[in-house]
Amino acid sequence: MKFETGVDQAGAQQRAVRRHRLAQPPQALDDSVAEEAPVALVFNGISHAVMMVTPRQLEAFALGFALTEGLITQAADVYDIEVKSHSGSLEVALTVSQQAFHGLKQQRRSMAGRSGCGVCGLESLEQIDLHPEPISTAPLHDDAALAAAVVNAVAQFGQHQQLMRVSGGVHAAGWCDAAGNVLQVCEDVGRHNALDKLIGVLAAAGVDMRRGFVFMSSRASYELVRKVARMQIPLLATISAPSTLAIDVASHAGVKLVSFCRQDACVEYT
Amino acid sequence: MKFETGVDQAGAQQRAVRRHRLAQPPQALDDSVAEEAPVALVFNGISHAVMMVTPRQLEAFALGFALTEGLITQAADVYDIEVKSHSGSLEVALTVSQQAFHGLKQQRRSMAGRSGCGVCGLESLEQIDLHPEPISTAPLHDDAALAAAVVNAVAQFGQHQQLMRVSGGVHAAGWCDAAGNVLQVCEDVGRHNALDKLIGVLAAAGVDMRRGFVFMSSRASYELVRKVARMQIPLLATISAPSTLAIDVASHAGVKLVSFCRQDACVEYT
Repeated sequence: MKFETGVDQAGAQQRAVRRHRLAQPPQALDDSVAEEAPVALVFNGISHAVMMVTPRQLEAFALGFALTEGLITQAADVYDIEVKSHSGSLEVALTVSQQAFHGLKQQRRSMAGRSGCGVCGLESLEQIDLHPEPISTAPLHDDAALAAAVVNAVAQFGQHQQLMRVSGGVHAAGWCDAAGNVLQVCEDVGRHNALDKLIGVLAAAGVDMRRGFVFMSSRASYELVRKVARMQIPLLATISAPSTLAIDVASHAGVKLVSFCRQDACVEYT
Repeated sequence: MKFETGVDQAGAQQRAVRRHRLAQPPQALDDSVAEEAPVALVFNGISHAVMMVTPRQLEAFALGFALTEGLITQAADVYDIEVKSHSGSLEVALTVSQQAFHGLKQQRRSMAGRSGCGVCGLESLEQIDLHPEPISTAPLHDDAALAAAVVNAVAQFGQHQQLMRVSGGVHAAGWCDAAGNVLQVCEDVGRHNALDKLIGVLAAAGVDMRRGFVFMSSRASYELVRKVARMQIPLLATISAPSTLAIDVASHAGVKLVSFCRQDACVEYT
């Protein structure tokens, strides 16, 4: 699948700011700011969810979201993805197979309001899914290879964070081969959006996600582990700390979770 | 209002981990990890939302959430808040006035699935509120006083981040007086939850929120500005970057937004 971009998707805008320094007059200048905008995801003409997203790589975002949220089971279920802008409002219109659309309508009935972080929008605890199917992917590394791969990813990651460099304040999700070479990076104000964009890019390119790992600039939270598990990715590495629930869900799903990734060390939680 | 804690609310748990260092054998040890757990918010017996929260100060969280999401208009609408644990599942049961409950049911009808970040759970763009009522609070500072207050808050903030110190990976929301003295700090894996906890603590104590400002360890996103505006708080200061939408909503609401707060400087966006 190839994404065609009809709508301008820069990801950052210039804004006038005033820089304050102690005991100095404020200084007026322009600054690049990461965009955050509501984006409606529409499947076969029916609105499914609204997400706050950095409006860049929206086609990949929509495809990844549909996959990691289990709305579709394969990229081939999506026939077309179109980004539309109506007087400043952004909409991604997906055309999915009749079979996928039927499944999606069934799911809507049982999970009204389900959305990106996998929990908000739910109204009761019964609706929450803390037990993803265990993955069937073989581990990527032994101990020595794990540390070497993570350290390699840490060393390479920063140079790929383009939007971070101009704006600050965005998360990045990176795809690494088993040796920790960073092959692809997607950025967004929301960490789960950055991951969905990455998954969408990989799925569209037909990448085998069992053979590499995801490296995130953020902390490891529940919903990232759940999305990674759904794609059968064997390892999630994050720069910042995990939560208890991220550890528990990763253990249950058989996803290796490594956090506090540094230039020469990391901590394994599962 | 006084919060009574019936359920253990520590906020962090010990987990067995393995620390990897390049070219060294892994080292097994115990580590403190920030808790993340699904918490159901139940109003007069009816489940309203499930949020992923660090289970600590849950009574304050529920009160703050109800206020900043506009489910109630004043703390006095809440007669009782009780935290319950059923076989590991957490629920906060609020008893609210009949009038507040009536308004809440009306709102449920028009905003099914509305939740903490103010947008996920929504199904269509029409449901989103990007134009909060402008606040009527007078500005707190002139330019010189603004920089001095923010710099003061930066200097004091770290020592209040208790859960961050033991676990890493949590956000903090602080309440500061006009001079930037940090009077109260709440922490959570979710930044909007940390803010809701803070608002709940302040509302329960009857603090006049027009006379101080909120300082956050996170970036400035749309939903933080919206929550701050709803409480008539005149200034939001954050350590990390803002998004375009945070700037736009703050400008519209008349909330001063200051980000990239550092030891001797900050950037004003409105």
